[in-house]
This record gives sequence, structure tokens and C-alpha cells, in this order.
Amino acid sequence: MSGIWGNHIKYTIFGESHGEGIGMVIDGLPAGFPLDLEEIAREMDRRRPGTSSLTTHRSETDGFKILSGFFQGRTTGTPLGIVIENSDQHSGDYERLKGIPRPGHGDYTGHIKYSGFQDYRGGGHFSGRLTAPLVFAGAVAKQLLSLLHIRIGAHIASIGSITDSSFKSLLPTELLLSQLAAAGFPTLDPAAGEAMRQLIDAVRTQKDSVGGTVETAALNLPAGLGAPFFDSLESTISHLVFSIPGAKAIEFGDGFGLAEMKGSAASDPFILKEGKVCTSANHNGGILGGISTGMPLIFKTAFKPTPSIGLPQNTVDLKEMKELSIEITGRHDPCIVPRALPVVEAVTAMTILEHLSPNLIKEVIK
Amino acid sequence: MSGIWGNHIKYTIFGESHGEGIGMVIDGLPAGFPLDLEEIAREMDRRRPGTSSLTTHRSETDGFKILSGFFQGRTTGTPLGIVIENSDQHSGDYERLKGIPRPGHGDYTGHIKYSGFQDYRGGGHFSGRLTAPLVFAGAVAKQLLSLLHIRIGAHIASIGSITDSSFKSLLPTELLLSQLAAAGFPTLDPAAGEAMRQLIDAVRTQKDSVGGTVETAALNLPAGLGAPFFDSLESTISHLVFSIPGAKAIEFGDGFGLAEMKGSAASDPFILKEGKVCTSANHNGGILGGISTGMPLIFKTAFKPTPSIGLPQNTVDLKEMKELSIEITGRHDPCIVPRALPVVEAVTAMTILEHLSPNLIKEVIK
Amino acid sequence: MSGIWGNHIKYTIFGESHGEGIGMVIDGLPAGFPLDLEEIAREMDRRRPGTSSLTTHRSETDGFKILSGFFQGRTTGTPLGIVIENSDQHSGDYERLKGIPRPGHGDYTGHIKYSGFQDYRGGGHFSGRLTAPLVFAGAVAKQLLSLLHIRIGAHIASIGSITDSSFKSLLPTELLLSQLAAAGFPTLDPAAGEAMRQLIDAVRTQKDSVGGTVETAALNLPAGLGAPFFDSLESTISHLVFSIPGAKAIEFGDGFGLAEMKGSAASDPFILKEGKVCTSANHNGGILGGISTGMPLIFKTAFKPTPSIGLPQNTVDLKEMKELSIEITGRHDPCIVPRALPVVEAVTAMTILEHLSPNLIKEVIK
Amino acid sequence: MSGIWGNHIKYTIFGESHGEGIGMVIDGLPAGFPLDLEEIAREMDRRRPGTSSLTTHRSETDGFKILSGFFQGRTTGTPLGIVIENSDQHSGDYERLKGIPRPGHGDYTGHIKYSGFQDYRGGGHFSGRLTAPLVFAGAVAKQLLSLLHIRIGAHIASIGSITDSSFKSLLPTELLLSQLAAAGFPTLDPAAGEAMRQLIDAVRTQKDSVGGTVETAALNLPAGLGAPFFDSLESTISHLVFSIPGAKAIEFGDGFGLAEMKGSAASDPFILKEGKVCTSANHNGGILGGISTGMPLIFKTAFKPTPSIGLPQNTVDLKEMKELSIEITGRHDPCIVPRALPVVEAVTAMTILEHLSPNLIKEVIK
Repeated sequence: MSGIWGNHIKYTIFGESHGEGIGMVIDGLPAGFPLDLEEIAREMDRRRPGTSSLTTHRSETDGFKILSGFFQGRTTGTPLGIVIENSDQHSGDYERLKGIPRPGHGDYTGHIKYSGFQDYRGGGHFSGRLTAPLVFAGAVAKQLLSLLHIRIGAHIASIGSITDSSFKSLLPTELLLSQLAAAGFPTLDPAAGEAMRQLIDAVRTQKDSVGGTVETAALNLPAGLGAPFFDSLESTISHLVFSIPGAKAIEFGDGFGLAEMKGSAASDPFILKEGKVCTSANHNGGILGGISTGMPLIFKTAFKPTPSIGLPQNTVDLKEMKELSIEITGRHDPCIVPRALPVVEAVTAMTILEHLSPNLIKEVIK
Repeated sequence: MSGIWGNHIKYTIFGESHGEGIGMVIDGLPAGFPLDLEEIAREMDRRRPGTSSLTTHRSETDGFKILSGFFQGRTTGTPLGIVIENSDQHSGDYERLKGIPRPGHGDYTGHIKYSGFQDYRGGGHFSGRLTAPLVFAGAVAKQLLSLLHIRIGAHIASIGSITDSSFKSLLPTELLLSQLAAAGFPTLDPAAGEAMRQLIDAVRTQKDSVGGTVETAALNLPAGLGAPFFDSLESTISHLVFSIPGAKAIEFGDGFGLAEMKGSAASDPFILKEGKVCTSANHNGGILGGISTGMPLIFKTAFKPTPSIGLPQNTVDLKEMKELSIEITGRHDPCIVPRALPVVEAVTAMTILEHLSPNLIKEVIK
Repeated sequence: MSGIWGNHIKYTIFGESHGEGIGMVIDGLPAGFPLDLEEIAREMDRRRPGTSSLTTHRSETDGFKILSGFFQGRTTGTPLGIVIENSDQHSGDYERLKGIPRPGHGDYTGHIKYSGFQDYRGGGHFSGRLTAPLVFAGAVAKQLLSLLHIRIGAHIASIGSITDSSFKSLLPTELLLSQLAAAGFPTLDPAAGEAMRQLIDAVRTQKDSVGGTVETAALNLPAGLGAPFFDSLESTISHLVFSIPGAKAIEFGDGFGLAEMKGSAASDPFILKEGKVCTSANHNGGILGGISTGMPLIFKTAFKPTPSIGLPQNTVDLKEMKELSIEITGRHDPCIVPRALPVVEAVTAMTILEHLSPNLIKEVIK
Repeated sequence: MSGIWGNHIKYTIFGESHGEGIGMVIDGLPAGFPLDLEEIAREMDRRRPGTSSLTTHRSETDGFKILSGFFQGRTTGTPLGIVIENSDQHSGDYERLKGIPRPGHGDYTGHIKYSGFQDYRGGGHFSGRLTAPLVFAGAVAKQLLSLLHIRIGAHIASIGSITDSSFKSLLPTELLLSQLAAAGFPTLDPAAGEAMRQLIDAVRTQKDSVGGTVETAALNLPAGLGAPFFDSLESTISHLVFSIPGAKAIEFGDGFGLAEMKGSAASDPFILKEGKVCTSANHNGGILGGISTGMPLIFKTAFKPTPSIGLPQNTVDLKEMKELSIEITGRHDPCIVPRALPVVEAVTAMTILEHLSPNLIKEVIK
């Protein structure tokens, strides 16, 4: 049970919200790959707090500091270590919440797991801030995957009960994914997007929050990635997706819808198209037997509403062992979905890269 | 990407449907644990084919052969190896399907991944038969977990559009889980169960199949199991659940329902009950920050309809590279959900055991 | 701490000397590789007990049973599982030794580690018999490595104080390694070999035993295999070599001799030979910075004298907690070195294969 | 093959000699352990360059910066990340050596492995500087092990042909190990130490270097640590020891000496001493069957002479592909043994801690 993931390429995460810094070590990258740091910065901007609009496309390479594994503009093949320093933290605000777990957060379970010795400030190691190194890692993975023309994108599929169109009806193309990546609030249907924004604004004023879903697609995946046991594409993608704070459900292809269907309706028949094998439907979301079919990989992730709300909630003072009511103040996203979306893309890229061996990547570089 | 799972206790799976045998090696079990082989056989009977009723409670210990790691009725602490021999296989039936992938199965993706050298008979390594060693491993894990009074159970939550009650309304108790384990077709609501059986019979006669869902609960889990990165309870459970053939979606607690809720409605407030901290609701399914809260662990898994149906389906002959239509004959479950259910329980037990360190288990034995 | 080794290709070992069977699961082999089972049997014959002369070259393919991962003469790419059944075991002989650890064996330490629940018969999981699956795995690895013309061989470098010539003076060639592999008692200097055999015969009649060393070479290794941290060639080779019962020391290149040398004498200068970079000396045994140089890999392993001797030795009855003297009867090798030699070769092949990625191997197959 | 080691506690290393910084992430430490940073700094001083005498006992806590996993003086249980910044590097000196590998170093093999993209300055990732994070990790491990009264110490057993006494004759005690830890040039025999220093001075003036050996002991190890396959104490210790630059040989107990002995002489008979089982000799260095016996763990490591010498050596210019002669200037240790010694102690502590489960440690903390 550890803060390290991966077999061919291993990702080690560390850090607490209010400690000296957070970071990541990526071990196993191919040598000689020219990382585009500006592009990484743009990816990281997508999940940054306080960027309600991404139109300015600020490229702050100083957000992360590369300590090792990068030399003269290229990866060296040795561990790539980065640090993102913490600053401007109002740690004092958290002292009064010490020992008083916020409902819906990892405060209580962390307190039990770490015997009360965890850094409780700002969620500590559980903070959503820890997704910043994930986005860095995902940005690196995306650049490597683009060598094979693999593209990953996502849209906000729903906020509360307002739903967007689906990749199942509006088939994803590379162009569409690019447009979504450039959008500040990526939806397929602009009207749905507008309604979602209004809902988020409304719950903010109510001191409440709201959940939502993200639908993700990966295009140009070669067939044959994954394994029947134990590292199916579904297993590995879900493993990383459930490392994103707030993720509570995932479905591949038609997912829960498949449970209601008959086999004759759920079938993805094989056909020949321009001499290549593909399926005429994609109920399975591009995965059969745990392995990619070559069709678009499609899955949907549910995020719960931000548990930090200004409305009063009941909790327990663990030191005094008595019940009390708290109202969580401070700046909190009324909906984490827009900022979780690039993190979902990031872990998808990390997972696909893991299934494509470094050697394959190596060849492509040449 | 491998057929080995686990860190403290490692499970190695091997075998093909029509090879010499399938099996499992379990490495890292505590020494001196008295395995109840009869109980293991009963668990394995629950997923066996051809047992439409489990009322006879046959206890066939000869279904598996223990090769190592078990001596004088107890585990030795060295790797526990088992083999389940294959027999009565009509391998000839499969020759004509060679190179003709069945839609919805791993035939095509396995063909690509293994460059056409896979054992194609009966699904080979992708066969549902490979879940038998998982149930063995899960039965071992369950016996160890029972030392800590941890109970795992499941019911058929839906077949097609017929739904059972939920563990969310009918709170699971140890007694209820025992009753479900003893039932041949475990549902909370007997009428729903009867309707589900009729639906399955109906699709069978239509040469069709149908999907469904399984809802699982684990009781008496201590708080503090799991990790924020990367091995959350959700991550590790979903990793193994998606190793079960046919699983396509999973949700923890209210899952996709949480995406539609406001934070004020989704809150699981902490309260004191008999001097202990618990939550007054359980929308999060017993997991916060990736770590168990001590409340019941609840999750639901969707299984797609069996892709092997007698109705004609289109596919491609990979040798001739031409399209054709096939009708899959032979005995096939019209619905895999009843047999998948004990496998879900098994992998849940394996996952929880992994999070409880062997040392903790060791203590309990004494 | 586990009975599983490897990252790209994973080896899971199981079994006890007097249990149902011992075996191995090899996970991660490339698909479509045509295994030569006869050749594997010949390798396994080299370490078999009771084969004082290997001139007959018996090819018993029935010594091991392949359960999975092998189909129509080729690997399938799924886990390759084998079992070697135990038979003709006189387990009764061991009852009287229960709780009385033999000096120099793992009896006592196993008793402590496994809390007295280990299978104590014939050394149980600690038995030299467990090296049979290692030789199987090594034979598979050798066949894969031969695709890249990599050859591994060894000779008995010393028995007691009688020493053979060294690979350092008599440079190893592929021909020499072939001759050594075919020899029943492989030495470079026949006279030394004869003297060693006489010494072994002499200690046998004295009811005593004797130790010795094995010098191993690997030819045609490409430069660039290994890593600075933590998986250097020395780290990984020594890791597996010290899994062989009785191994107590290892040195690479000039090893302990280097500790006595000056830098000017220990230097391996780089030169050009037929347009290729190599070194004019090989004090480092083909490894610099933990990575292969392309020069012959050379290392020496020390094996202690067989601790099972007929002479009286003091020990303790762990049940009665009193001292006593034992004389170990039964057939025991007076020197394990000749039978350990093919095991050293085997683990060397496994290690080199691990450093060469499966993808590289895959290419070569084509 | 990666820069991560360990199963219960995982160590991730990163950094290059002349990059921004080097560091380590330690994942899996128990929560609530009060680290003594001054003590860590003292350990790190022992391997620092330029400290010919350690009598001043400088305690520079600023040598390393803790980024995470440490809060209010105690470990938090989350990943402990540290960075050691690089400074005062004369990187320009190395430009002229680009593409010209120094004999005996990892320059050439790193060039091949990383396709020429490695950071070649000052040895890059192969630099001895990378042992600083290992000493940090070892210092943390030592503090945890001291909870169980486990002590680790070492002395310089030989420099060139000058040898010290051995732990085999002068049995190690806790007091002795403390004295060795405090010594600037730790030997058992002061006269041998003085002769060694003179030899090192002599080779320095000759622009040459010299090798040597380190003998290490660990006291108060409980019996039962290790495993027969594949993670024996010998396997795991040697794995990490061979991660130390310059290590070329290791022997446990009498090591290569055992190869020359008869079984009757090499026997470690079990006896009772104050009611406890121990052995009356320790030829096996405290390890039987890969598992600790409870007797002192003893092993010896050989280090080659520093390959960086001022005398001319032949090498090849890899760009021009022509031979040339180089003289390596700059400050280089004429013998790395004194500075390698604390690193050997460090990796020994890391290995022993790995075999003692975190849970055991956890208990002790309470």
C-alpha cells in the first residue's frame, strides 16, 4: 500500500498541502525525449485554483522545479524528480480545526490511519493539491503518447442533474478533443455548459456544493493493450482514477447501462473497415477481455460534491469526544469537477503509457 | 502488467480453460492458520457451473489439489500452491472457431496481444473458469478475516431492469449476509429474485442473455484501512473487481448518485454512538479519503450480458479476413451474475486482507 | 519478502521437499516462442541427484509437467506453470528429527520464522530440491537468450583447496562453454578435476563434506544492461545467486582481489577493436557502474560444505530444550558444488533475461 | 529495473551530481516516530567529502531539506521526501570530458544505456554523491532499529594488503560499535589503521589510488528475519550493497573461506546459553537458510580502487571514435573505503528494517 504506482514507469508522489513542497519522481522514462515545458505548464494551469478562465494561457514554468532527470532539454533516462513549493499558506486557519474532522474529507480516516500524527493542515497529504504532480506526470505521458498519435480528452458530462451530450452520440475526433482541451469549461453542448455554470454559481451563493461526472476518451490506442489478469485496462485505469480525491464511481463503455441490456443488444460485432478489423458498435468502451480493441476508449467518472461547504454540518471533536457543528469557511470550489477533469486525463495518460512498454516508446523516438 | 497481485500477500494465477490445469500460488500467508477445506469447497461450489440449486451443499474437496504450503491441517507460511485439473473438455468443438473471434469476448484482443499464439480453446486464459482459483483465494482470505469478525456478503441487485432492494435501505447485518451466502439465488426481496429467475429463463429460451448488478457489503471493517495514494480502498477493490470477466462498472456508496447531489445532501456527518465515532449516513460507502471509516463498506458492480448467445452475430474470420455470421452453440450461462457474485465477494476478501497486514492477522491467531 | 522474483518476467516458486509437488509459474514470457523440452530436460538432468555421470544424456521430459502457458509447442504469452511431483519420499525418516535442527541448515531459522508450522520433512521449502524449478526457469531463459547469441557457462573453480584454472587466464569462448556444459564434472584443467573428484570421494568415506567455488561466464552480452540504482547487474545477479542454498560469497571480476590493488593496476582501459569499443583488461568482470560493458561477464560464487554429515554434531532438541548430539544418516552429497553449478547458470540466465526487456526478445523472435 | 527499492518501506532515489538537487522519498515509515535530525546530520557528516577528521562533529541540519512526511518533530506516516541541493559545482570542468569515458567509471556504460542523453557532468546519476540520500535513509532506519536495540557498525578491514583484525576474532559488542562509529578512521587495530592511512597518503602522492574492504556487523538481530526464496538476508543485503559505487565482492561469515573447509570444521553447532538457543561458532555469519539465527550478522565487502587517478590511462573518444590518453585531474579520494563505510552501514540498516515489518516497529513505538 504505497505512494508509488507503475511497473515499467514508476511514479512516486509525496507532499502535504502546507509542508515545504509537494512533488513526484518519475522513474523509467526513455532517455532523449524532448519535454515541452511550456506545454506541461499549460496542462498544469488547467487544474490550478483561481483560474476561472484559461483564455490567457499563462505559461508559468516556475510552478514546478525539475530537480533531476532532465538535461539540455531532454530526459536523461534517470529518475525525473520535480518539486512544487508551497507558499502563501494560511496554516494558522487550520489550527482550530485540529482534531475536528470535516465530514466527507479524509481528516478522520487519516487521523486513524496515521495515529493522529498526520499533517492536518489543509488536508495534508489528502489535499487536492496533490493532484498537481499527477497533472505534471500526465502531461509528460501525453507528450510521449502523442508520438504514437494517441490523444486523450474529456468533457464535463454532467453537473448535478444537468447533462451534456455523450461521446457515444457525438463521436470524439482529434479535433474535438483539441477544442475541449482549449475550453475553459469543456462541454460538448454549449447550452448545457452554460446551465452547469449557472448551477455552480447558484450553489456557491447557497454556501453549498454539487457533484458531477467527467467522460473521457482516448483515440488511436492500438489494439492489444492490457491483460486479462490482474492488470486489465479497466483495472489499471480505475486504480488511478480512484486516487483522485472525490472520485466515487467509474463505468466503461455503457457501464451500468450494460447491466440492463440483453446480449443481442450489447453486442459489438466485428466488421472490416478499410481492410481493418473494428467493431460496428462500442458498448464495451474499447475494451474486451481487459484489453484494448483499437476502438475509442470511453469511460465516465463520478465525482461527489465538494464536502467543504459553508452550511453547518455535524461532526465530532476527537480530543474532547463530543459532538459539535461546524461551518467551513475559506475559499473552496463549489464543484470540483472542472478541476478534476484534467486530472482524469492525466491518470489516463499515465495508465496507457504503462501498458505501452518504454521500448515501444523508445523506438518511436528514433 | 502481470498475473500477480498483492504486496503483503501475493496471488499468482495461471491456467487455460482447456490446458492441463489452472491454479494459484498464494505467497505471504501467516503460518499456523488452520484452513477449513470443507468451507473452501462450499465457497467454490457457489460459482461452479451446473449447480442451479446450491441446496445440496456438496463439499467436494477434490475439486482443488493443494500442492504446497499446507501441512498437518495448517498453513506453513510458505507459498500455498493449488491446482485444479481440467477434465471432460470437448476441445474439438473449438477448432472450428479458431481465428474467428466471438463478439464481446477476449478472443480478438487476446489474439492481438499474444500474436495469435494464445490457447484459443474455450477462451483460454480469458475463460471464466479462471475465477475458480480466485474463489479459492477469497475463501482463504475470508477465513482469515473472520478472525477479526469481518464479514463479506453480496446480493443480486438487479437482472436486466428488475431491481432488488438495496443494502442502503435494508441495512446489512451479519445474519443477513449469512442468509444470502446460503441462498442459491441471493436477493433481499424474494419477489424480485423470482422475477429475475423468470427473466433469465426467458432470455435462455430466446437464445439471448442478460446483464445485471451485484451489491456487496463488508461489515466490521476497522477504520484506517487504505491509503490516499495510490492504493485507496476504491483503487484496490476496483482493480481486482475489474479482473472478473464481464465487470464493466463499479460505484462506491451512492456512486453515480453522488454526482447529482448537493454537498449538503451528500454529507456523512460524524456522530458519537456508544462512545464511538461513526457517521449518521453512509453516502460514501464506508470510505473517505480512500480509507475505511468503520462504517459498512458498500459497492455495486455491473456485469454485462454474457456475450455467448445463440442468436446470430457478425464477426470476422481473421485468417481469411472476411466477414461472417456465427451462432454460438454449447452450454452457456444466459446470465453470469449469479456465478460472478461469489467471485466479487472473493476479490473483496483478498483486497481487505491485503490492507490488513499479515502481522495483524498473525497476532489474532495467537 | 517473497517467493516471487522479477519485474518484466516474474518467477513464482512453491513447494516442499516432501509435499505433493514443487513448481514454478513464469509470467511475462513472450508469446510464440518454441520451447525445446528435450533441452530443458537435459539441463534439469545436470542437477539431478544420483547422476554421477551425465554421459547417458537421458532426456526425461516427464520430470516436469507443464500445466499452462504452452500450446502447440510454443509459449502462449500467458503464465507458464509447471509442477514437478514428489515421489519415493521416505518421510518417516524425518519424524525423529522433528524439532531437532540440523546444524548449518535452515531447520532452526525456519522453525523460528514459521513458528514451528513449517513442513520439516527433508528441509521442506528450504530443500535443495527447490532448485529444480530454478533450473527449469533458467533453461527457458537460456533458450530465449540464445536468440541473441548470449551463452552462459560455468566450471568448478575449486573444491576445498584444490583450484582449477580461471576464466581470467583461459578466456572463455562459446566452444569452451559448450564443452563445459557437456562435461559431467566441468573443469578447465582435467588434472584439477580429477584431484577434486578424489577429494570428494575421500571426504565421503570420512563421513565429512567439503565446499568449493563455481566460476561463471556470460558471453555476447550487449553493453548497457543493468542500472546504477538499485538494480545493478551485480545487485540482481547476487540477489538470485544467494537464493541458492549453500551460497555464501560472490565476487565480480577480480572481486576481493581488487581490494588489494592500486587503481593503476586495476584499470580497464577502453580501446578500439575492429572499430568497436572494448576494454583491454577485464578486472571489473564486464560490469561498470552496475551496467554491462559488453566484455565477458565473470563472477565467482562460494558454496559452503554440505552441512549434512555423518560425523557427530551438537544441536538442541527444541521441544525438550536440551542439548544432544546427532549423526545425519541417509544419502547426502558430500559436496554440493557440482549440482549447484547448473543452478548458478540458471539464475544467471534468469537475471540477464530480466535486464533484456521482453520487447527486445519479442523482436528477435520475428 | 528501477531507482526504487523495498517492499514494506520503499526508497525512491533521484538526482545527478551537477543537477538542481539529489534526494530520496521514503514511503511506508510508521507515523509518530520522533526523528533526531542532529543524529542524521552526524551520520551524513561521516561520508561527506573534505572531512578528513570527524572530531569537530559538525551538525549541519541544512545539508538536507525535508519536504514532506515530517511534522512537529515526528514522522507523519506519509512519504518522507528530502532534497539535498547541489552547489559550488564546477560543471565547466566536465565539458571537455564529454564523450570521453573515464576507465573504471560508469561513463561508458551509462552512455550506452541512456543513448548519450545522460547528464555526464561529474558522473551524473552514477556519482558517489548519490550515496548521500542512502546515508540519510540509513540514519532513519538506524533510529527505528535502535528501538529494538539493533546496532550496526563497521570497520575498515583492509586497505591494499594491510589488514585489520576481524570481528571473528575480536567479537563485536555494542560498545565496540559505538567506538567505531565515533572514530574518524575506524579500525579494530590502531596500528593497522595508522599503516592504512600512510598507504593512502602514499598512493595520493603517486597520483594513484587503492582498494580495500569493510567488515560490517549487526547485533541483537532477532532470529527469523529473511526468507529462503527469493529474499534471503544475503540476497537483500547484497542487492543494496552492490548499489554502492565501487563494491565488487561480498562474503557472509567465513565466505570464500567456507569453500575451502570441510563440513566438520564449518559446522555451527547449536547450544543452549542461558536457556536460549545459539550457535557455538558463527562460520555462517548469523544467517542460515537465508534467515537470521540471532547470532551477530557479519559480512565483508570489497571496494575497488578509485578509478579516477592522475596517472595516464587509455580511453576512447566516442564522438571521434579514436583512442587517446587521459589524466584525471581535480580532487578525488585516493581511496573510497573510508567514505563507503557509512554507506555500507546505511544499506544494512535499510535492509534489516525491511525484514522487520513496519507493524513490529509500530508496536515498539508505543
